[in-house]
Amino acid sequence: MEATTFVLFGATGDLAKRKIYPALYNLFVDQKLPQSFSVIGLGRRELSDKTFQANVEQSLLMFSRREAKDPVLMNNFLRAFRYSVLDVSRKEDYQKLLHLIEQQEEEQRTVPNRMFYLSVGPEFFETITANILESGLGSANGWKRLVIEKPFGHDLQSARDLNENLSKAFKEDEIFRVDHYLGKPMVQKLEVLQQNNPVLQALWNNRYIANVQITANEIVGVEERAGYYDHVGAIRDMFQNHMLQLLMMLTIHLPNNSTSENIRFKKKQVMESLEKLQKEDVKSHVIRGQYGPGTIEGKTVVGYLSEPNIAATSRNDTFIAAKLQIDNYFWRGVPFYIRTGKRMKDKSTRIVIEFKEPLKQSGANHDNKTPNLLVFEISPHEGISLQLNTRDHLNKGELKPMHIDFRESRDHVPEAYENLISHALHGDSAFFAHWDEVELSWQWVQPILDAYEENQVPLHLYAAGTYGPAESDDLLAQDGYHWWFDDKSEQEVETIKGEHYAYHTND
Amino acid sequence: MEATTFVLFGATGDLAKRKIYPALYNLFVDQKLPQSFSVIGLGRRELSDKTFQANVEQSLLMFSRREAKDPVLMNNFLRAFRYSVLDVSRKEDYQKLLHLIEQQEEEQRTVPNRMFYLSVGPEFFETITANILESGLGSANGWKRLVIEKPFGHDLQSARDLNENLSKAFKEDEIFRVDHYLGKPMVQKLEVLQQNNPVLQALWNNRYIANVQITANEIVGVEERAGYYDHVGAIRDMFQNHMLQLLMMLTIHLPNNSTSENIRFKKKQVMESLEKLQKEDVKSHVIRGQYGPGTIEGKTVVGYLSEPNIAATSRNDTFIAAKLQIDNYFWRGVPFYIRTGKRMKDKSTRIVIEFKEPLKQSGANHDNKTPNLLVFEISPHEGISLQLNTRDHLNKGELKPMHIDFRESRDHVPEAYENLISHALHGDSAFFAHWDEVELSWQWVQPILDAYEENQVPLHLYAAGTYGPAESDDLLAQDGYHWWFDDKSEQEVETIKGEHYAYHTND
Repeated sequence: MEATTFVLFGATGDLAKRKIYPALYNLFVDQKLPQSFSVIGLGRRELSDKTFQANVEQSLLMFSRREAKDPVLMNNFLRAFRYSVLDVSRKEDYQKLLHLIEQQEEEQRTVPNRMFYLSVGPEFFETITANILESGLGSANGWKRLVIEKPFGHDLQSARDLNENLSKAFKEDEIFRVDHYLGKPMVQKLEVLQQNNPVLQALWNNRYIANVQITANEIVGVEERAGYYDHVGAIRDMFQNHMLQLLMMLTIHLPNNSTSENIRFKKKQVMESLEKLQKEDVKSHVIRGQYGPGTIEGKTVVGYLSEPNIAATSRNDTFIAAKLQIDNYFWRGVPFYIRTGKRMKDKSTRIVIEFKEPLKQSGANHDNKTPNLLVFEISPHEGISLQLNTRDHLNKGELKPMHIDFRESRDHVPEAYENLISHALHGDSAFFAHWDEVELSWQWVQPILDAYEENQVPLHLYAAGTYGPAESDDLLAQDGYHWWFDDKSEQEVETIKGEHYAYHTND
Repeated sequence: MEATTFVLFGATGDLAKRKIYPALYNLFVDQKLPQSFSVIGLGRRELSDKTFQANVEQSLLMFSRREAKDPVLMNNFLRAFRYSVLDVSRKEDYQKLLHLIEQQEEEQRTVPNRMFYLSVGPEFFETITANILESGLGSANGWKRLVIEKPFGHDLQSARDLNENLSKAFKEDEIFRVDHYLGKPMVQKLEVLQQNNPVLQALWNNRYIANVQITANEIVGVEERAGYYDHVGAIRDMFQNHMLQLLMMLTIHLPNNSTSENIRFKKKQVMESLEKLQKEDVKSHVIRGQYGPGTIEGKTVVGYLSEPNIAATSRNDTFIAAKLQIDNYFWRGVPFYIRTGKRMKDKSTRIVIEFKEPLKQSGANHDNKTPNLLVFEISPHEGISLQLNTRDHLNKGELKPMHIDFRESRDHVPEAYENLISHALHGDSAFFAHWDEVELSWQWVQPILDAYEENQVPLHLYAAGTYGPAESDDLLAQDGYHWWFDDKSEQEVETIKGEHYAYHTND
């Protein structure tokens, strides 16, 4: 792998500590960092290299899932870390940074490849990239890459403005827009599974699939993010980026051995095929919700409006459920139901593919047959499950669901950030959001933002600890479906209970 | 369930002790026997009812897998057992039996439904059924059923003769021919799974399936069965009945909610569509083997010719591998490879469905991709496994197989005999071999018997503890395939190793 200087803006921030340092450490232990690799941490505070290294070590002890920190390994890892103070708007600091980088590159006699990782608020993106350009940090004789975190804009126009600004300093193929859902191992498997398995390919279309359900439920409420979240809501925080990315990753049909260009081209095609919503149609396709007080895991929790720093009159959305349709050869007629919310009954990100029941119409069948389901569990656990119908001949007449399950049992499932940083170091952009995808996502979402803004869409309250407003269930019920795997036992709704089995064969 | 008298010929025999009594006991405990149910055991030895009951209890203690024998339950169970001495050719004994049955039916004021279970050698079938007819045992005012064990004939002609004789006393729908493979839970699931799962239905044909492999391997040798086995061989002992029944159960396409008539009609159709072998073609489609000395699980074992009571010149087959083709809409062009043998490396009955790789031809793919496999493990463990290809993006370029597994985890998986006796008591013949199936199986097998007889087919020796002669591998290799899951590590053949995962989701 090519020599790289990893320039981290926001090196004393929370994301760096929780995600970036542990990911770098794991890559280091697995010998997946470049032979010649150095990190330059940037922040407003004055820190010596030594203190910075001690802080990095501290964050590894707190947040890395790796056991047994070998002191020699740790020392070798930390040696690569330098710190430089930087006020994002002070031009001298960029010159100092340039000097430091050049000095290191010279000492190590390496090609000047520089990766600029912006782990800072979006309000700094434009200043930083302008200064990178102006200071000459990006004009060395190697490659340069920009890694930026969400949010990428607040709506279609602001996203376009941002992109135009970034484009002055970085070309599209130098920009790596992090959507950490694309780094999750199971999400990365979606295209591999579809591409390499004839059995799945055979089933991956509207002939066999009745509907698709994409859920990302959180138990937490707004937490300490009120200032940010109350201007963003579930639609911007989750739906426009992560949820639509999951939709794209699931629905692309790839030729064998696709490149990242293929993947991104197909994703763009999916977004272009997504049936557009007019502002007037939003209320019939989108359920907007906000949590009220309720009970979660036995504990009473307050409603959104009683959360610290949330105005008592806020109409911000903490839940969205939407019905989408893709108008192409493979997916025409298959509804995609997408929902995400805070203060839900359980934490789960999953995709459920419900298959058609061609024999259902015959009416000859009085069995309580359930549809075949293929389930991708994305988090908190990773797994794939296929639900089929079976029956005991001794207990005749009773069909029952049977689950064929898989779960990754490796010692170390890589975290999303480990995957993403590794891809960026390789210059592989397959699992980063291309501007086209971002723009098309904002374009698709914009009528919803407008309809919300104009209050054309009712804001349904739902009790914390449920699965969102009843209208979310109605959205599916009107098509004859229901959300799978909602455990509504305490809400006294009938549930389907299956027997579960698991084991290894052919060890 | 209707009152039944269960008349057991061979009540002191091995099968009764090991299989029939434990099965009856389990059905009793699960309350799956008729309210009014009595057993009359028959044998040559003089036994009091009390001694007979004690013998039955003894066999339950030895062979029933149920723990915790409740003495009250046991007592209630044994109360239903009577014994009557019977020499199969002595007409008075049948009169005595008739008298005993009538007396019981009168005492219990039940309808005279009688199930005659022939757990005796085939040489007695005709005598017994003739005497049942002649004695009037079968002419009462209820139903009568005949349950018989294999073998059903020694070749096509003897099977026809036997059936003609049985037909004098019992109509086809009164005859329940046991093929205990049809009682195995996973075999019974084959049709349920196919019938009730659109996902499997979509894949269940020659568009997606490359080949099917049906294996029944035993570790044991001829054991104490030399006198029987040396005149029968693998082809009659296993292939003509069990293996062809597995083939039928796998390949039938059933309408929803099929009756046993549907099932048997479809099975017959499959047998009629099986491409016939001419005697001259046998040697190119069938591999005949006999085990030589070898090593099994670290122990040296003798070859077949050195087994007790086997003539040193025997050319009997202890192994068969055959390639079959079904010429119908669903299966045209899909080879079915069937093999069964004694003294194999491991004990396993399984069906492997190998799916086509439509993208393989493109040549663009340099991955070590393995085909998708759907595996039904029938014994010794029951399970279903789906093998797909996946990849870690961190370990790019390396595809690896992934297994989605299921295993029955109930406390009590019913034994084959439990299922079969229960079906017979219900008069449900779906999982018994119809005469048409038996006749068509013998018809298909007859050219092989003839070719063996005339020594047109080489007898390949194979070392005990292997997977049969190398020619069995060649049979698949000439079509570009190989037997899956043969662990040839000690034979220094390259094996494909997958990683295995398992667990529960959505508990």
